[in-house]
Amino acid sequence: MAQQVIIVGAVAAGTKAACRIKRMDPSANITLIDRDSYISYAGCGIPYFVGGDVADLEGLQATFAHVIRDCGYFKNVKGVNVRPRVEAVSIDCKSKQLLVRNLAERIEETLCYDKLVLAVGSVPMIFDLPGADLPGVFPVGNLHHAKGIKERVSKGMVESAVVIGGGAKGLEMAEALTDLWGVETTLIEMRDQLLHSAFGDDMALLIQNHLQEKDVRVILSERVIRIVGDSETGVEGVETENQKISCDLVIIATGTMPNVSLGKNAGLDLGETGAIVVNELMQTSDPDIYAGGDCVEMTHLVSRRKIHMPMGSLANLHGRVIGTNIAGGRDRFPGTVASCCLKVFDMAVARAGLTVKQSEIEGFDPVFTIVVQSDRAHFYPTQELMWMKLIADKRSRKVLGIEVMGSQGDAVKARADVVGALLYNQVDLSVLSSLEVGHTPPFAASLEIINNAANSLENILEGRQDSITVKEFLELFKKGKARVLDVRSTVQAGPFVEKYGDQWVNIPQEELPNRLSEIPAGTLSLVCGSGPRSYETQLFLREKGYKETKNVQGGIGMIKYSDPDFSPPEH
Amino acid sequence: MAQQVIIVGAVAAGTKAACRIKRMDPSANITLIDRDSYISYAGCGIPYFVGGDVADLEGLQATFAHVIRDCGYFKNVKGVNVRPRVEAVSIDCKSKQLLVRNLAERIEETLCYDKLVLAVGSVPMIFDLPGADLPGVFPVGNLHHAKGIKERVSKGMVESAVVIGGGAKGLEMAEALTDLWGVETTLIEMRDQLLHSAFGDDMALLIQNHLQEKDVRVILSERVIRIVGDSETGVEGVETENQKISCDLVIIATGTMPNVSLGKNAGLDLGETGAIVVNELMQTSDPDIYAGGDCVEMTHLVSRRKIHMPMGSLANLHGRVIGTNIAGGRDRFPGTVASCCLKVFDMAVARAGLTVKQSEIEGFDPVFTIVVQSDRAHFYPTQELMWMKLIADKRSRKVLGIEVMGSQGDAVKARADVVGALLYNQVDLSVLSSLEVGHTPPFAASLEIINNAANSLENILEGRQDSITVKEFLELFKKGKARVLDVRSTVQAGPFVEKYGDQWVNIPQEELPNRLSEIPAGTLSLVCGSGPRSYETQLFLREKGYKETKNVQGGIGMIKYSDPDFSPPEH
Repeated sequence: MAQQVIIVGAVAAGTKAACRIKRMDPSANITLIDRDSYISYAGCGIPYFVGGDVADLEGLQATFAHVIRDCGYFKNVKGVNVRPRVEAVSIDCKSKQLLVRNLAERIEETLCYDKLVLAVGSVPMIFDLPGADLPGVFPVGNLHHAKGIKERVSKGMVESAVVIGGGAKGLEMAEALTDLWGVETTLIEMRDQLLHSAFGDDMALLIQNHLQEKDVRVILSERVIRIVGDSETGVEGVETENQKISCDLVIIATGTMPNVSLGKNAGLDLGETGAIVVNELMQTSDPDIYAGGDCVEMTHLVSRRKIHMPMGSLANLHGRVIGTNIAGGRDRFPGTVASCCLKVFDMAVARAGLTVKQSEIEGFDPVFTIVVQSDRAHFYPTQELMWMKLIADKRSRKVLGIEVMGSQGDAVKARADVVGALLYNQVDLSVLSSLEVGHTPPFAASLEIINNAANSLENILEGRQDSITVKEFLELFKKGKARVLDVRSTVQAGPFVEKYGDQWVNIPQEELPNRLSEIPAGTLSLVCGSGPRSYETQLFLREKGYKETKNVQGGIGMIKYSDPDFSPPEH
Repeated sequence: MAQQVIIVGAVAAGTKAACRIKRMDPSANITLIDRDSYISYAGCGIPYFVGGDVADLEGLQATFAHVIRDCGYFKNVKGVNVRPRVEAVSIDCKSKQLLVRNLAERIEETLCYDKLVLAVGSVPMIFDLPGADLPGVFPVGNLHHAKGIKERVSKGMVESAVVIGGGAKGLEMAEALTDLWGVETTLIEMRDQLLHSAFGDDMALLIQNHLQEKDVRVILSERVIRIVGDSETGVEGVETENQKISCDLVIIATGTMPNVSLGKNAGLDLGETGAIVVNELMQTSDPDIYAGGDCVEMTHLVSRRKIHMPMGSLANLHGRVIGTNIAGGRDRFPGTVASCCLKVFDMAVARAGLTVKQSEIEGFDPVFTIVVQSDRAHFYPTQELMWMKLIADKRSRKVLGIEVMGSQGDAVKARADVVGALLYNQVDLSVLSSLEVGHTPPFAASLEIINNAANSLENILEGRQDSITVKEFLELFKKGKARVLDVRSTVQAGPFVEKYGDQWVNIPQEELPNRLSEIPAGTLSLVCGSGPRSYETQLFLREKGYKETKNVQGGIGMIKYSDPDFSPPEH
């Protein structure tokens, strides 16, 4: 008897599961329903459609071979029956029946299943924000939103926009609006940093400065309390607790919630995150019902706690596991290392694991380093700076997380991916110290930044390096409570000495042995271009009896990008 | 009592060890000797110096902060005493003495050590090639060679060159000569493929075709038997068994041998590779003598056999381990995953692990797949094709190796690095199937190529996919023994049908269900753009009773780049 499989949701996890089942078990009878008319599209591509990198909506719906993934495609190529504009109303787990409603014809019907798959995704978190339903206000949930936004901007209807929410989607939309369309864009985030769920405040500050350099106005620590406008003529602005900002377009990118009502009403277990609970086989608490994608929670492989990670790429992985298991194979999805990667104008950021704050919440004792160095051989002409934050647990020396930023996105993502792959199992910091990666000057420094970061963190853990973050340093320095010994060349350090006088002393590292008498008394913040020379200086000075030094992590490479106004103008 | 450390060799491992010791144990007394006047340079940068990416020799000798790493630098910044032009003559292990000879003053002297480090590198394999000493013939061993080569090309003395050896260095030098200087370059390799120690013949063929497209003439399976010329006026050409090739410059890039004479004469153990044996602490058979870099052998972490891997990046890792251990810490170097990465004109290739041939030699039963897909979301404008070969053991399903090629080098290297990091421990193929990597359309497809390759290989191992390599396919097809069913669109397949007539049948995948009667009888080679559609077709046809099909691995994406003349000209 052919297996009857019903899949609810036809975007990522659902379509993947359907195709995988069919490939393994061609006799299976698969029905894929979706309340939307758009199916099987690349939701993560919406900002690039809006920003013009992808010319038309079909770009997000087509295969690599430029075939649109519509119902006919699924029928003829995949052997899967897709029914768009059909909504799942309720599940009767006992009799294994699904009540559905055809939205066009308003007809209800009962479908029987042997296996049911919930791939119902997530819904934008809009809460009860007044004005959220005004014309010109859009979440970034589906292709209808994408179309609506692009229509407005491409018709020249938008001079200024507000993006609510400083997560990945918010930043991507801010770039899309500013970069191609020249829309004056304000990004509002209620927390005190951007990208709080994926990056520490130090890395987030670098990104924020880059956004501002690209003319995105960033407002932190403010909450939008209402969107104002006219139900006919549309949105006119937003109001925070402190100010009113006029605009012609509002993007709500405040995150998403798992879409759980169908599963919850059927009695399926929900987890601590509020999402549907699944085991490693992607089965819900009803073994005949599988779930995957944005509606489920999964295990964070570093914290071992459940998290909700709405990512299309994970949804695809879930879909395949579900498909294999329904088709009689056995596959498991072990969990997530919480990878995140995004392009922000000319920069890219990527991470895996836990941030420092998340590590603390999970009961770890996180210690971190920030290193700045070339992303390839420093003599190779295309080399650019790369920033890396590496976090480990003080007690166990296990790696907890990595955050990377730089202008060559593939190279940035590469570093987070390598460390992320190792986070599947607990990994000692020492493994990263001697980790081998491919080496050739056009694509790598002979001392790989991952090795250097691990070495730096080992030195901190072993008490050889006594460091201070740039944030701490800048606070102290601005209060007159820190004095710098800058060991760079006189050419490089000169403008700082000129700007900050006595508070900024320059002795080039190679001259130190002969100029010991010039070293000022008291605590010194040691600074070089990116950190290693000031670290060496710290060891040297310690040997000479100067115990009161702090190495400024990442040196000028971090100071300059954390606080663009601090550094003297470049000549 | 301050520890006396003598280090022989001041390029990579030696300098790294010296600096690390000094940072951990500032009291240590470190003498670094080198027979050469050039010390602490980036040997891997030589092709980029010759090719003009690096303007002057100082570029390869300077730090990130543009300070030349000369003796004064080591003295003042690192606290290390460097003695260039001093050669190690012999070691007396018992009395812990090293006899050295000052090459300038021709004075011999005995130095006492507590710990001795051998970082003596490798020497070019020139064997007894007649004419190798002619003016205009250079190995690529050190900066003297680099300078000699660049002087000749930059003075316009070189119209044509022969590079002997199709390994990484040979390819890099061929590019350097051709790309900037327009030198007519012939690359001669005695084996039947390029890069034999790192890539399979299928991937090597793609690289070879790219070299040829860039006007490098490639000769395989021929051995240079002599270099001819005049000892005054210099080289005039090379002779192989079959032909004479005129040229004004010869580069010998036939590989290197570990420099072991000093260690061997002192009675240190040499291993099966001929290189010095060290344990994980990088100690030789004499525990007071450490060795690292190109002169030692190390454990291949996949085969567990010893190999000789002369790589500057590994030498640096060795140096740090040696330094830590001599300074009283404890660090280990577990081995290598044999990473290799290189830029070849507009392409890059990277790998880790074992090739198919190497796997067979090591007693594995290797099975592989080749997949071709976009290196980022296929709708993102900067997407390019990426080729990936993934190899696993049939019995154990452990991953054995990965080979990648593409035009975005960071992205290519990234994939090999991620899999390479997992090869430190045995890794199941299923881990790669569900491996999470960062995802964002500008830098990744939503179905990561690593996942896809693992899936494809699983399908082959489980008998779902019955595939044929492009090499096998082309051989059969050209003999008239293969017939193609091309399931791409008529627009794409049309020119092939036109060129190959009956032997090339086109039915677009989506039309197959309705055109079953048109499918020719007999064995069919299934072809699509890159492999997945032809795989789906195989499943579909099998279900319909057509059992005799072979899926051509990598499809047109592999055929076109393996045999540029096979495909009809593009319109």
